[in-house]
Amino acid sequence: MEAYSIAIIGKGNFGSALARLFNKYVPQYEVLQLDKSPDSEAILGIEAIQRCDAIIPAVPLSKFEIVIEQIKPLMKPGTLVIDVCTTSCYPAEIMQKHLPQDVHLLSTHPLFGPESLETAGWDLTGLNLVIWPLRMPEAVYNTIGKGLKKTGINVIHKSPEEHDRTLAESQFLSLLVGALLEKLDIQSTAMNTRSFDELLDVKATTRNDYHILLDVFRYNPYCEPKLNEVLETIGTLGNQLQAYIKKP
Amino acid sequence: MEAYSIAIIGKGNFGSALARLFNKYVPQYEVLQLDKSPDSEAILGIEAIQRCDAIIPAVPLSKFEIVIEQIKPLMKPGTLVIDVCTTSCYPAEIMQKHLPQDVHLLSTHPLFGPESLETAGWDLTGLNLVIWPLRMPEAVYNTIGKGLKKTGINVIHKSPEEHDRTLAESQFLSLLVGALLEKLDIQSTAMNTRSFDELLDVKATTRNDYHILLDVFRYNPYCEPKLNEVLETIGTLGNQLQAYIKKP
Repeated sequence: MEAYSIAIIGKGNFGSALARLFNKYVPQYEVLQLDKSPDSEAILGIEAIQRCDAIIPAVPLSKFEIVIEQIKPLMKPGTLVIDVCTTSCYPAEIMQKHLPQDVHLLSTHPLFGPESLETAGWDLTGLNLVIWPLRMPEAVYNTIGKGLKKTGINVIHKSPEEHDRTLAESQFLSLLVGALLEKLDIQSTAMNTRSFDELLDVKATTRNDYHILLDVFRYNPYCEPKLNEVLETIGTLGNQLQAYIKKP
Repeated sequence: MEAYSIAIIGKGNFGSALARLFNKYVPQYEVLQLDKSPDSEAILGIEAIQRCDAIIPAVPLSKFEIVIEQIKPLMKPGTLVIDVCTTSCYPAEIMQKHLPQDVHLLSTHPLFGPESLETAGWDLTGLNLVIWPLRMPEAVYNTIGKGLKKTGINVIHKSPEEHDRTLAESQFLSLLVGALLEKLDIQSTAMNTRSFDELLDVKATTRNDYHILLDVFRYNPYCEPKLNEVLETIGTLGNQLQAYIKKP
């Protein structure tokens, strides 16, 4: 019997972190890393995925559909396609639209990245992973769940809709505040309060995530109303402060 | 020789925390706590401060001048008046305006409150205290500095102007973001990212500080331009996100 074989498409920070995790936790698996041509969207050596059991596109959301279209003709019945995007409804829709009924689909969102992995010493214990069986036999989903449990990761079963709605209340807000603090260029002073130290933590954690903020906003439909709520709320707060100055 | 005697005016959270600190660190001092009448601004039993060596008004900034006017006729040459307000220029101006030349004036801002003291087990080690000798002999200032050093507190010597300018960049911002998060009513979810956990920390730390935000904004002249910068910056950020959605 041949080794279980996984293709990761995308050699960016997250794709490389995934490859490192598979090598650590399931060293018996074969892990292929593919990337697109520097000159076009074509994935170099894509024919190799024909012999893979699972395919993970680890690419920006804006490239997700182009990648799914390229892998489509190479799928066999039972191949597992796993999305790891930062929003879930959009990639679910794209996979369901393009990939044949007999291709299994797993929606996931690892709520961590290379920086939090580095902080955790590449130990998955307690890190959060959202998963959902978009299309697959229950037995396969259960096997995946059991395998994940062994790593110590915290598995959260949530549908793409519930994921996107919740993340617009949590991740989107922290990325938005982080980008604001980055643009304001806040810096540690000789006179920090505790809450200012915590604000500096938010800025440090999100410092490389502006592209994620853009994608989250573009592909998660719940973010635009949340942005409007934030703008309105801070405007009201500003007016309250101004009114308090003028009070006799 | 009689014990060194301190009057704290104001029995709010911060005044009570100060009394507790004096009792812990200098139990040989006599500490009086006075408060205003429930019906007027008159401080009950104020004549007792005539025999005190130091007076600390621990009252909201909006009551600071009323308190200084009441203590003025009871000051002796060499009495030390210590402000502990969250902004420094305004109380410095009020004390210098009303109190006679032979009354010593110390500007301070403890960058901590009852909540951070509770977290620290009422141990001052490493907590930040800004101080400045507004008006006093150098020898007295040096003696105070030496006494503070023994507690392990981190003494930061900064003028009221520098204090207010810096705090508008740090404390004001974290109070503003905290108030925004409070109004948005953010809550922990089943799918928190690390940066969202940090945002929840900011909300928790500042949850009782809306009145401080109001006072900081009113009495620190550097906050209004900072608020305008924040509103402009988040507006620009919102426009950039909207533009990114519409990109083909």
